[in-house]
Amino acid sequence: MPSPAKAQPDKYELVSELAKRRGFFWPSYEIYGGVSGFVTFGAYGAALKRRIEDKFRRFFLNPYGMIEIESSIITPAKVFEASGHLAHFKEPLVECLKCKRRFRADHLLQEQAKMTDTETEKLSLKELETTIKTKNIRCPECNSTTWGKPKHFLTMFQTTIGPYASAEATGYGRPEAAQGIFVEFKRLYEQTREKLPLGIAQIGHALRNEISPRQGLIRLREFTIMDVEFFFDPEEPCTWLKHMENETLRIIPAELKLKGKKEPITITTKDALTRGIVKTEWQAFFMALAKQFLIQLGVPEEKQRFIEKLPWEKAHYSLQSFDQEIFLDRWGWTEVSGLAYRADYDLKQHMQHSGADMQVYKEYPKPVTKEVLTIKPNMAKLGPVFKKDAAKIAEQLKNADANEVQTSLEKKGYYTLDAYKILPEHVEITKAKVEEKGKRFIPHVVEPSFGSDRLAYIALEYAYEQKKDRALLKLPRDVAPVQVGVFPLMNRDGLTERAMEIARKLTGEGFTVEYDDSGSIGRRYARMDEVGTPLCVTIDYTTLKDQTVTIRDRDSWKQVRTDVSELVKGLHEYFSYDKEFKDLGEPVKE
Amino acid sequence: MPSPAKAQPDKYELVSELAKRRGFFWPSYEIYGGVSGFVTFGAYGAALKRRIEDKFRRFFLNPYGMIEIESSIITPAKVFEASGHLAHFKEPLVECLKCKRRFRADHLLQEQAKMTDTETEKLSLKELETTIKTKNIRCPECNSTTWGKPKHFLTMFQTTIGPYASAEATGYGRPEAAQGIFVEFKRLYEQTREKLPLGIAQIGHALRNEISPRQGLIRLREFTIMDVEFFFDPEEPCTWLKHMENETLRIIPAELKLKGKKEPITITTKDALTRGIVKTEWQAFFMALAKQFLIQLGVPEEKQRFIEKLPWEKAHYSLQSFDQEIFLDRWGWTEVSGLAYRADYDLKQHMQHSGADMQVYKEYPKPVTKEVLTIKPNMAKLGPVFKKDAAKIAEQLKNADANEVQTSLEKKGYYTLDAYKILPEHVEITKAKVEEKGKRFIPHVVEPSFGSDRLAYIALEYAYEQKKDRALLKLPRDVAPVQVGVFPLMNRDGLTERAMEIARKLTGEGFTVEYDDSGSIGRRYARMDEVGTPLCVTIDYTTLKDQTVTIRDRDSWKQVRTDVSELVKGLHEYFSYDKEFKDLGEPVKE
Repeated sequence: MPSPAKAQPDKYELVSELAKRRGFFWPSYEIYGGVSGFVTFGAYGAALKRRIEDKFRRFFLNPYGMIEIESSIITPAKVFEASGHLAHFKEPLVECLKCKRRFRADHLLQEQAKMTDTETEKLSLKELETTIKTKNIRCPECNSTTWGKPKHFLTMFQTTIGPYASAEATGYGRPEAAQGIFVEFKRLYEQTREKLPLGIAQIGHALRNEISPRQGLIRLREFTIMDVEFFFDPEEPCTWLKHMENETLRIIPAELKLKGKKEPITITTKDALTRGIVKTEWQAFFMALAKQFLIQLGVPEEKQRFIEKLPWEKAHYSLQSFDQEIFLDRWGWTEVSGLAYRADYDLKQHMQHSGADMQVYKEYPKPVTKEVLTIKPNMAKLGPVFKKDAAKIAEQLKNADANEVQTSLEKKGYYTLDAYKILPEHVEITKAKVEEKGKRFIPHVVEPSFGSDRLAYIALEYAYEQKKDRALLKLPRDVAPVQVGVFPLMNRDGLTERAMEIARKLTGEGFTVEYDDSGSIGRRYARMDEVGTPLCVTIDYTTLKDQTVTIRDRDSWKQVRTDVSELVKGLHEYFSYDKEFKDLGEPVKE
Repeated sequence: MPSPAKAQPDKYELVSELAKRRGFFWPSYEIYGGVSGFVTFGAYGAALKRRIEDKFRRFFLNPYGMIEIESSIITPAKVFEASGHLAHFKEPLVECLKCKRRFRADHLLQEQAKMTDTETEKLSLKELETTIKTKNIRCPECNSTTWGKPKHFLTMFQTTIGPYASAEATGYGRPEAAQGIFVEFKRLYEQTREKLPLGIAQIGHALRNEISPRQGLIRLREFTIMDVEFFFDPEEPCTWLKHMENETLRIIPAELKLKGKKEPITITTKDALTRGIVKTEWQAFFMALAKQFLIQLGVPEEKQRFIEKLPWEKAHYSLQSFDQEIFLDRWGWTEVSGLAYRADYDLKQHMQHSGADMQVYKEYPKPVTKEVLTIKPNMAKLGPVFKKDAAKIAEQLKNADANEVQTSLEKKGYYTLDAYKILPEHVEITKAKVEEKGKRFIPHVVEPSFGSDRLAYIALEYAYEQKKDRALLKLPRDVAPVQVGVFPLMNRDGLTERAMEIARKLTGEGFTVEYDDSGSIGRRYARMDEVGTPLCVTIDYTTLKDQTVTIRDRDSWKQVRTDVSELVKGLHEYFSYDKEFKDLGEPVKE
């Protein structure tokens, strides 16, 4: 019998091998046996990730005047009590009674019973227990089918702040950077001169104590989150929507998802809003922006989609949520960003728990006249009936909601105040016109949220190609970790010195440069192709004669020749997308 | 009696007030009563801090070909067991028996008994206890003098990784980013093609669970560390020293410090090495570089010094350590960086604990011939004396250090092997010539380490000035959070549109721009001065006529007028220090 054909490695395997060998990323602490959920980014990976974060600033934040802050990862428990994380940031855990290993109960059902996450997220602990039994789920470690009762596990890292071990001193690693923004909202609003809309971003490490993380860069216990909390007045229109209204989105709305539909509808942001598929203009705007951002990182439109979260899938704070998903070779459709309409949930919670006023004041363009009802207690009638309580009742009536009192009197013929029955004759309700200059309200929030580690992986997978049996990363030029390779053709005759001089000059100009003089020129090009360096400059004998160098393109493997004096300007234009490779010099014949 | 004159606010107070009001930094979580040791950086502060980190890359790392990586903050316990942190990263804590508050025992002695940290760091727990008693130290909270026994408190944040609460699963927040580099050294060395010296940096959050942090940005529980681990062959000279040998350093060597001297000596790096004040060339090089870096952040030479750590002050891993200190208005001489010669300590520890080989191989330029001694046991002599033990002894002798055996035989006339006395006649020691092509060794490490939060504070304090009763931040132009303010002179006649257009253009060119059209132009300049914006561009009626704008200088308050078409180029040159303000256009008469 012939041995089974060796399976082709998938892109995840190819990218991971390259990433480990060349220094993009790899599992951390392997010399100590490794700890799942943690990765280390090497020189190329850290640079790629940083460039993606910078691109996020340049593309997503700066053009829209959003600001960026930095708060701490360790956060006192009070914050997560208010935000609802302590109650909700949990996952169902189940223990194998034989080998004592613990697993995500829902993941076991997804893997062994082929249930979808939409199906499993709906299940209560009791239902999970029953389903594990009926589906005959086996322990992935020891194959046993005897399971403990599923229970909820808080997936935040817990610690103690300071030298006292008390509940007061409990802290958690933040699972999102959002709360660091919400708790400081009022101060940030004042510092930015009290204007809405106000976008506040944060890029930094976040921690989630996953029960059993796998999938490399896709599910980490420590990762870099890029959260935008965008505060706006829900009564005002989205000022930037006009730039995006004809942008198309591929969406699977909750309604279709419930019907088991897996194909997205393609629709403009404008139509998605008109048809009520997306509830808030600002959310539609950010969905379009998020789509464009991923396109710029190398993921074409047809490999992207937005999938609406069902009521039981949404985070506890969300009115409407979409996951932006992109297609990965091994993992299929994978979440790359979440777009949640958090409304006023978080600010309201912090307002209630801390007592700090999170409302903003908005002055109307011109004062608005409103009819206001006022209650005037009729003491002549109240006195005889309620005796010594009459004064207290009169006071309470003044503070009662006049609309409510009137409605009750009209509908039921009386109004109940504590234990007292108030009749129409006890009060006089008058109408008055009041001029309001503005309103106080809690801003609403839409939150687009990315992870830069995952984006780095996605950029790598989409950039990965094989050409003539070797790997090539066609990374977008503005996120490539090295911008320019600089090589002397030979290690003699002054070529090395001249090449080093040019490398130093380019470094001084702010380019990321790698100088390399070892091995054949072909091998040096190959090394640069493999880490995605868009351009390589070679210094040859002609350089010494006429001060020209060749520039070689990663994608076409073509070369042009240009004057050294033109090099800096040309590269600046190339990397800011003002010029294409072919315009950097005269073509070199092959 | 007249009331005492109100004390002048010191610079710390002035800077903190401005920082909170304008959005540089402030204590976090104040709506929940605050948690000491945590700060939030607002828009300006986060930008300043990020620019300082970028400057570190540009100035400290890139010109010397160092790489940067990113590893996790949460680190498994095994790593800190090997690195010695679990045994050593502790501070003495003492509890007031009356009010139960806990304090740093050494800090109490420093504050109340005016002892220096050099004095307190020397004290054992027992000595701390006695000294607290004899010096009659009082509880800062309740004034009591009854104290518990001082004990050591591990100042790392502890947590549990994953769903099992076991020792195996214990993790800590890293107190330094160094270990994330050391544990991955071998892989990083391979990825960078096995060359020394190799500088590996990491910039990221670090955590120290301080017992009772005060001093705002100076002592934080969560901060951003910038660690460089510089790996080198101790037998090779420092290749870059020649650029630094005439750089002067102000040093207080351990010897002078012990004598109570407080004035530094001023000495070139070359002389410091010749006189043995600095033990390693690479350390001297980094001291000079660290000094230059601080000068570039605005701290003049005379406000800097290096102070050598005494044996009992040094970290457990260090052969020689200097603190780089700078002078702050409130805190006096304050550590801004540590420069530790860690030698091969860390790699050796991880090699022992993990079993991973951390040695590198170095091929000699040409093979080296060495004389090697070999021990040949003389069985004819050993047998009769040691009987049945003779074989075992012979075996052990073969593995013994031949040089040591020979020296002992020559000097003492015998060599002691366990309980046996070996005489010259029992062995034959022969010399042989061996050709060695290279050597295997553990690289040595010098570590410069900064904190970017503290650097941000220092830059602010040194930039802070008052001019005509208002605050001005003379930040170096390459770290200022906003580069250019753009204002229309009036909010009408098309000036607003033109100004917005120019602001957009500059943003697109990568500048950080703040557009402002509210209030008088004088007030707008003042707002920008206060956050350190070097240049402001104003669009006025002349602009509409001849396409020129004014540029106004933060420091001199002077103005020049230039063509809009020249603006982008001029600003690029100004911010890369290729041009000064006065060369940006024609002077405007005042």
